[in-house]
Amino acid sequence: MNSPYAMLDAIRRPLPQTLSEALKQSFSERFTTAQAVRDHHGKDESPFPTTPPDAVVFAQSTDEVVDVVKLCAQHQTPLIAFGAGSSLEGHLLAVQGGVSLDLSGMNQIIAIHAEDLTATVQAGVTRKQLNEALKTTGLFFPIDPGADASLGGMAATRASGTNAVRYGTMRENVLGLTVVTAEGKVIKPFNRAKKSSAGYDLTRLFIGSEGTLGIITEVTVKLYPVPEAMSAAVVNFPTLDAAVNTVIQTIQMGVPIARSEYLCPYTIKAINAHSHTTLREAHTLFFEFHGSNASVMEQAETVQQLARDFGGEDFEWATRPEDRSRLWNARHNAYFALLQSRPGSKGLSTDTCVPISRLADSITGARAILDRSTMPVGILGHVGDGNFHCAILIDPNNPQEIEESERLNDEIVKLAQSMEGTCTGEHGIGLHKIDYLEYEAGEDAMAIMRSIKRAMDPGNILNPGKIFRMS
Amino acid sequence: MNSPYAMLDAIRRPLPQTLSEALKQSFSERFTTAQAVRDHHGKDESPFPTTPPDAVVFAQSTDEVVDVVKLCAQHQTPLIAFGAGSSLEGHLLAVQGGVSLDLSGMNQIIAIHAEDLTATVQAGVTRKQLNEALKTTGLFFPIDPGADASLGGMAATRASGTNAVRYGTMRENVLGLTVVTAEGKVIKPFNRAKKSSAGYDLTRLFIGSEGTLGIITEVTVKLYPVPEAMSAAVVNFPTLDAAVNTVIQTIQMGVPIARSEYLCPYTIKAINAHSHTTLREAHTLFFEFHGSNASVMEQAETVQQLARDFGGEDFEWATRPEDRSRLWNARHNAYFALLQSRPGSKGLSTDTCVPISRLADSITGARAILDRSTMPVGILGHVGDGNFHCAILIDPNNPQEIEESERLNDEIVKLAQSMEGTCTGEHGIGLHKIDYLEYEAGEDAMAIMRSIKRAMDPGNILNPGKIFRMS
Repeated sequence: MNSPYAMLDAIRRPLPQTLSEALKQSFSERFTTAQAVRDHHGKDESPFPTTPPDAVVFAQSTDEVVDVVKLCAQHQTPLIAFGAGSSLEGHLLAVQGGVSLDLSGMNQIIAIHAEDLTATVQAGVTRKQLNEALKTTGLFFPIDPGADASLGGMAATRASGTNAVRYGTMRENVLGLTVVTAEGKVIKPFNRAKKSSAGYDLTRLFIGSEGTLGIITEVTVKLYPVPEAMSAAVVNFPTLDAAVNTVIQTIQMGVPIARSEYLCPYTIKAINAHSHTTLREAHTLFFEFHGSNASVMEQAETVQQLARDFGGEDFEWATRPEDRSRLWNARHNAYFALLQSRPGSKGLSTDTCVPISRLADSITGARAILDRSTMPVGILGHVGDGNFHCAILIDPNNPQEIEESERLNDEIVKLAQSMEGTCTGEHGIGLHKIDYLEYEAGEDAMAIMRSIKRAMDPGNILNPGKIFRMS
Repeated sequence: MNSPYAMLDAIRRPLPQTLSEALKQSFSERFTTAQAVRDHHGKDESPFPTTPPDAVVFAQSTDEVVDVVKLCAQHQTPLIAFGAGSSLEGHLLAVQGGVSLDLSGMNQIIAIHAEDLTATVQAGVTRKQLNEALKTTGLFFPIDPGADASLGGMAATRASGTNAVRYGTMRENVLGLTVVTAEGKVIKPFNRAKKSSAGYDLTRLFIGSEGTLGIITEVTVKLYPVPEAMSAAVVNFPTLDAAVNTVIQTIQMGVPIARSEYLCPYTIKAINAHSHTTLREAHTLFFEFHGSNASVMEQAETVQQLARDFGGEDFEWATRPEDRSRLWNARHNAYFALLQSRPGSKGLSTDTCVPISRLADSITGARAILDRSTMPVGILGHVGDGNFHCAILIDPNNPQEIEESERLNDEIVKLAQSMEGTCTGEHGIGLHKIDYLEYEAGEDAMAIMRSIKRAMDPGNILNPGKIFRMS
């Protein structure tokens, strides 16, 4: 494979003077070329070196996004939408220069339709902000990547998280989008109906398009009633295999678990240090059950029995909201805890997802590959979906480690792909997985993706260089 | 709006002689120009007059589909994929002539991966055939349009049915597709992973594209464990409003009902005559509950209490498999029962879907519009999704009735669209809803759909004239 690092050396044209002036005119102090701001917008949570845009614009409305898109289109200048900066595959890096369009100021909750179980928000609203706003409604929004990502960014990468095993991903939970096209038109292809057969599913096409087909400015999502009962549990296992097989059987039996997360002993150790918890440093599953009181009890009993059959022990319950919240905060911070476990490190996170029957082979295979790593590695993830992450903790200033991490990643991805799995369950392609996507989808499907890109963004101004090479 | 009937008069070129000869050469007796076969392939369950293709080819493999697509592309001849012929919006009518590609012979179940809860089938496999094949596995496939449709056709129209309220539609239940593109390439953009962020969601783009972007030849779907307990119930209500409000509250409370169907007194009467049942001719809800024994009991109690609050009575239970099966067979045959209630009639079926809080307004509004109808009308549908059908029973030889039915349909659709609803929850656009889609999506979104069509089918050979006009 080609090194994704090679793509950082694309040709950059300087920002056209007239564009710069026009943006300054329209946005005054919300337009900047200050180095610190550009640097902040030229990186994400990936180990890639900062690759800053030439300027940053902070937009506050869909109309302003239209203005920026039209100006960039006129000047054939790359435009990269920026939400919370929490992506993991180099999505935000300005590899061809251009303008970063920061949407974090578009953080208005436009409407909560509790009676329809929907909410419409601006793209910069984060998942925590939405759930905070829902507090008095008895409803919640389940999709929860580790970081407090923006909903626009989550839609753009087809994100998911710990609840996906029960509630699905952004693919299933977005009802409608408002999108500014590469031409600067505002479209809203679908409305708030729960299902629709009305024409091409443009909504799903924008979801996962990583800012390459349009700029998402508003998102309408499904909400769910807070379950009558919620209960979380922590269980330890003697081996990785035992933990994973417990989850596989739980899924195969159709137990409607809300969450089922694996964490390796190293990850638990990092979490204990970071979140001041005292979890046993073992192969661990975090479970959560949602439903009526009776149903939660039933689910918990079934899973407890299954876990015991595989040698699971120390079923520790968290039923009080504050205990559950502590547990899941620790889980959501696991990636940052891992980074902290090796000060100064950056993480290369794999993101493979395989059919559930191949999960044990895939994850023990990854473990064996990583046993050769000279760097510390945490393994954790959404095993109920067949999706897990190996966070390889790299010294970003050490080229040998970068090279080694890419080699390990390559082996893990190829193993998953040999099992009818995907290189990315939820992080997206960005810069990092372009070759893997090419292999996975095949060249004829890639040709179709490129033809769609050409049709919808003929000037190739929207986040160019991501997902695939144009030629 | 333009009458959809006007579109039946498109320009037809005769079938090129060389194409005809090449197809005959390759397919011998599986290529035909016999009038009866062409007529059968030039109609669906809509009231449109038969508009036959010039020839019909019966394909048995993806490779054969490739051959036909390439030949049609060479000869710039329209090609219309045909599954079970059960669509409702004129999807199959050969308005520009050309070849109908019958996929019903592609009826092999390729693989049942019970351990992954997935099945891969050829496009011609029907939903009943798949469930029959699953019988010994303890799994089932829930998506159930009224007719015994083919899975390829169901994917192509983004179909759903009675179980969608719990299990989702084809949008949520297809994992992957094999598609022959307009160029005759075979693509399989996604694999069997449960979730994926790998590139543009081509799978979702083909789902609902009604054969205009590619020919679906294989479908991989999610399966579900047959629940431990299943229980169905029939309840009568004094008014339409009472029945609908019971469902609205059930949904808003988050009760995970598996099915919730409304049937009007006229529909019940038609069902009694057709299926030899003795249901009371009242505003009726059919419910079904899936889960563990305890959970089904809980759900049933909650819904029973809600129904009673709205004056629901005669809760009649069907827990034995044969009783449930009789009930749902009757429901699935309701459309045909309605047609039989007026011998010689054809049905114009509305298919609006609105946010659940607008359901009562939408359905009582439709009822008021239809009270002026000179034709009999049955109202029924998947009210838990906000989706219902008004089946207007037309004498297809009476132009006044056709005109009146279109007028009534127009009012009902516009009412739903004024409530943030869609013209089609599950039937698709076909010929019949082109203008409504245009209004609903807006001209800029339509321009994008057309640009995608041009990019993926530059010769406009795949089911031309459906979903939108190209200019």
